[in-house]
Amino acid sequence: MQFHVLSHLEYTVKFPSNLILNIHAQRNSGQTILEENFTVSPNVKTEEFLLDNGTNRLIRLQTGDEKKLVIDYAATVECAFDVIPAGEMDIATIGDLDPAAIPFLFPSRYCQSDRLGRLAWDLFGKIPKPYDKVNAIVDWIHNSVEYVRGSTDSATSAYDTITQRTGVCRDFAHLGIALCRALNIPSRYVSAYAYQLDPPDFHAVFECHLGGRWIVFDATRLAPLNGLVRIGVSRDASDAAVASIFGQVQGTAMKVDCQLVPGQTFTPLERKHLLRRGISLESNHAAATD
Amino acid sequence: MQFHVLSHLEYTVKFPSNLILNIHAQRNSGQTILEENFTVSPNVKTEEFLLDNGTNRLIRLQTGDEKKLVIDYAATVECAFDVIPAGEMDIATIGDLDPAAIPFLFPSRYCQSDRLGRLAWDLFGKIPKPYDKVNAIVDWIHNSVEYVRGSTDSATSAYDTITQRTGVCRDFAHLGIALCRALNIPSRYVSAYAYQLDPPDFHAVFECHLGGRWIVFDATRLAPLNGLVRIGVSRDASDAAVASIFGQVQGTAMKVDCQLVPGQTFTPLERKHLLRRGISLESNHAAATD
Amino acid sequence: MQFHVLSHLEYTVKFPSNLILNIHAQRNSGQTILEENFTVSPNVKTEEFLLDNGTNRLIRLQTGDEKKLVIDYAATVECAFDVIPAGEMDIATIGDLDPAAIPFLFPSRYCQSDRLGRLAWDLFGKIPKPYDKVNAIVDWIHNSVEYVRGSTDSATSAYDTITQRTGVCRDFAHLGIALCRALNIPSRYVSAYAYQLDPPDFHAVFECHLGGRWIVFDATRLAPLNGLVRIGVSRDASDAAVASIFGQVQGTAMKVDCQLVPGQTFTPLERKHLLRRGISLESNHAAATD
Amino acid sequence: MQFHVLSHLEYTVKFPSNLILNIHAQRNSGQTILEENFTVSPNVKTEEFLLDNGTNRLIRLQTGDEKKLVIDYAATVECAFDVIPAGEMDIATIGDLDPAAIPFLFPSRYCQSDRLGRLAWDLFGKIPKPYDKVNAIVDWIHNSVEYVRGSTDSATSAYDTITQRTGVCRDFAHLGIALCRALNIPSRYVSAYAYQLDPPDFHAVFECHLGGRWIVFDATRLAPLNGLVRIGVSRDASDAAVASIFGQVQGTAMKVDCQLVPGQTFTPLERKHLLRRGISLESNHAAATD
Repeated sequence: MQFHVLSHLEYTVKFPSNLILNIHAQRNSGQTILEENFTVSPNVKTEEFLLDNGTNRLIRLQTGDEKKLVIDYAATVECAFDVIPAGEMDIATIGDLDPAAIPFLFPSRYCQSDRLGRLAWDLFGKIPKPYDKVNAIVDWIHNSVEYVRGSTDSATSAYDTITQRTGVCRDFAHLGIALCRALNIPSRYVSAYAYQLDPPDFHAVFECHLGGRWIVFDATRLAPLNGLVRIGVSRDASDAAVASIFGQVQGTAMKVDCQLVPGQTFTPLERKHLLRRGISLESNHAAATD
Repeated sequence: MQFHVLSHLEYTVKFPSNLILNIHAQRNSGQTILEENFTVSPNVKTEEFLLDNGTNRLIRLQTGDEKKLVIDYAATVECAFDVIPAGEMDIATIGDLDPAAIPFLFPSRYCQSDRLGRLAWDLFGKIPKPYDKVNAIVDWIHNSVEYVRGSTDSATSAYDTITQRTGVCRDFAHLGIALCRALNIPSRYVSAYAYQLDPPDFHAVFECHLGGRWIVFDATRLAPLNGLVRIGVSRDASDAAVASIFGQVQGTAMKVDCQLVPGQTFTPLERKHLLRRGISLESNHAAATD
Repeated sequence: MQFHVLSHLEYTVKFPSNLILNIHAQRNSGQTILEENFTVSPNVKTEEFLLDNGTNRLIRLQTGDEKKLVIDYAATVECAFDVIPAGEMDIATIGDLDPAAIPFLFPSRYCQSDRLGRLAWDLFGKIPKPYDKVNAIVDWIHNSVEYVRGSTDSATSAYDTITQRTGVCRDFAHLGIALCRALNIPSRYVSAYAYQLDPPDFHAVFECHLGGRWIVFDATRLAPLNGLVRIGVSRDASDAAVASIFGQVQGTAMKVDCQLVPGQTFTPLERKHLLRRGISLESNHAAATD
Repeated sequence: MQFHVLSHLEYTVKFPSNLILNIHAQRNSGQTILEENFTVSPNVKTEEFLLDNGTNRLIRLQTGDEKKLVIDYAATVECAFDVIPAGEMDIATIGDLDPAAIPFLFPSRYCQSDRLGRLAWDLFGKIPKPYDKVNAIVDWIHNSVEYVRGSTDSATSAYDTITQRTGVCRDFAHLGIALCRALNIPSRYVSAYAYQLDPPDFHAVFECHLGGRWIVFDATRLAPLNGLVRIGVSRDASDAAVASIFGQVQGTAMKVDCQLVPGQTFTPLERKHLLRRGISLESNHAAATD
């Protein structure tokens, strides 16, 4: 499948400042950038750099003096995914785990898995299969936490959400990650453009390392799992912000969109269609699945 | 200088479990392993792997069935350091910063720099030079926080320590890191063997990225800055634990030591000797400084 | 029934200090002090005073200079209780509620009912009868929280326990209170001597205002509800400490006991015997029930 | 002095609910109600009751079915105050303290004095005179915390404000109370109408028990200390809310005012005029001071 994605950001700069933007679609085995355009108006100094072994594409931008800044990103992205049967999603023991997944076992700013251990084991510890464990977590979050726009802020973490039980996509993802890590399942945060997300916005989901693959989950159930165009993967939102601001800059407008390229077909795959199958957005055979 | 370092760990295994150990001295530009020995008794399956671009050397260990486990690590390490004049420790703007330092600007599990911004700017924001800012932070922590063994636990974070004002080396480091990041100074956690630390133990300090170099700081003032043999660098203690336990394993004994190799000379460099100079443990000219 | 209760406390005084002790059995409609003895050795200045409209009996004590202090309290207490049928334990609307119960609707230091609202309503909101609601809360706490000596400290509150799921009697009581208040059920903390508590110690339970009576609940299930000799009732442990210390005093030993007076009979009434009946320790007809 | 005070509250009731209002001016030794009017439109069932030994006047109100509710309170209040010289504001030892002040030594929902002890002693412990201690606290809060409307919410407590350093009058009062209690100075929360507060609103200040009197302090410095018409005194905002809502009621409008009665004269007394003198709003000789 091919998607057109775009984001449009406006800022008021009060003082020479720096921004780090994370809005570019990833390049990876499941995601090919067919066409891409990034503009800043007026023109200021920008530079792209990669983090996390090349996974995440970031832009740093020096605003210069007081001004209005308009940032536009648009891309056409070819996306593939693999559907994985339940039987192939066992969790590796720590001894067999891909070392690159190990950092995603540890607690992070918004995912205090170290403080959720007993609760996680009580609720989900007896479920034998790891994929079923994660699905039970996702279902439990979906049923226990209410999606309420504006109910949380940038200080809200999984330790709050487990009790306060409201939040937005970021909070749903953080709670999922924290509960999985508490059960020794490597888990990471994914920011994405999301097809059929309504209203359109940046979306956040999470991935668990099961059977050697990163399998994607979304406790909000607000968008199909196979309609995600990944932007950043990280420990949690602390290092996947759309814009990290260093200085005096005020966001004034934002527009995000994700559309299917005309002529392409799309069959949504959500939790209810997948049952005990999983989706990996890092396709091993990109050509075969689009 | 050359140091003998050793650590001796004993565990009671109740059930087949996994351990990830972080006790090996780093190999880097300032640190050369001359000799090294690692044994586990009885012999169980272990494997070394590298994380963080090869910086950190970790061991994963599969305990097998119920047993007593004794782990011994000993190494002779050649250490070098550079003394950096204040004038060479300016902070880069985000636009010029080494991308590898950027992740160390963001909050992490134990260093909630996002919640300390106003306090950090109030106390230290007006100090013009970045190196002086960090030294002011280090002095303030030293004077405001009392070193009290057992006063904190593995859940304690910088957000607690800023108010509760007691802690151990780990807490001192976390608070330093959080305050520096709140001022946009990249800052990271360092676990180390420490010469002249009394009683001997694993130590924790922090490093700030100033003038393109990682400069080491220690708000506890419990050991000379040039007597550190680095084990791990990381965002905070969440991914630099001596031992991460997955399963049912109980630590029962621990011994740590760091001695100067006989015949070597050592001139301690601490905060009071350095004044406005800094120390980087990633020496650019290892041969010249030992 | 008649109980012998005693407490023995030892302190090391380092400096002239003050103590406020809350170890005296209450005098109220269900509890008559038949005999009582309170000694401090060596003799220092003490004074009894009443708080909370005479309910709680406190001792303030001026230690004078450096010394060892031994405090002994012993009493024989006649206790009565009423067994209340489920049908008589409806909750009053706020409009009909005894004003004296109203302060027990609000959050307090260790019972942050304001932050548990959504969780409480999700878990228990649909249970129609208030008494059944409280019993469901008590059962849920009993099944979800593990009693682990030493797992919590004086900073632990219901907001922690709801997630960390370990604690001691004080934590069980705080969580019960917080959940009840979140559902608009007035709820208060009760410290007590407890018959058949093993090992003997000060105990903590909670009471809810149902049908115009304070009904007692104990999520730990560690002692019969009709074997409690009440010491203090309060919003939470913050104003019901056994000893509040103002100065430099160290507790060095403590012994507590509660025994049935020889010749008295006792039929334990616990959750499992009561089913949908409740117990009020403020008996309306003391003579009839002992 | 005489003040006209008024408050006007509008609510949308969705469902039969209960409100507890705390908007009536107190009757006490320093405050005489000359005239008072309270109306609810449309007429619903209301009842006044007293709490805290008659100090606080509360209204409970049963809304009945869905409706718009308009509440108006207006009063003319004669206020007196005493100016107390520094020498008369020593703190009593616990042994001599009025028992009624003792509950205000303990931590409460928003004033976690138990967690601020070390910080409070570090910053203020060496100041010998209690009145000077409190003034140092008030000045420190004034200089360290920024008054930012909307920066905090109903979950914000002193433990947050000590670090986050923004807040409104309620947060300033909570922090003052917590720091005073940490130093064993009894301290309580006061809600009030405030003359010359701009914009007009309900105000919050705090009182400390010094020399046997409750002395008033205001770290916001937004209104003269002798222009306060007290509504409620309590441990903290948890039991002094303007309106506690039990059910489904939405506040839609609020207007508050406090004006000097024409013909009366008023000489503002603020921190800067008082220097080392204090003000008690519980005047011992009301006639002499107005």
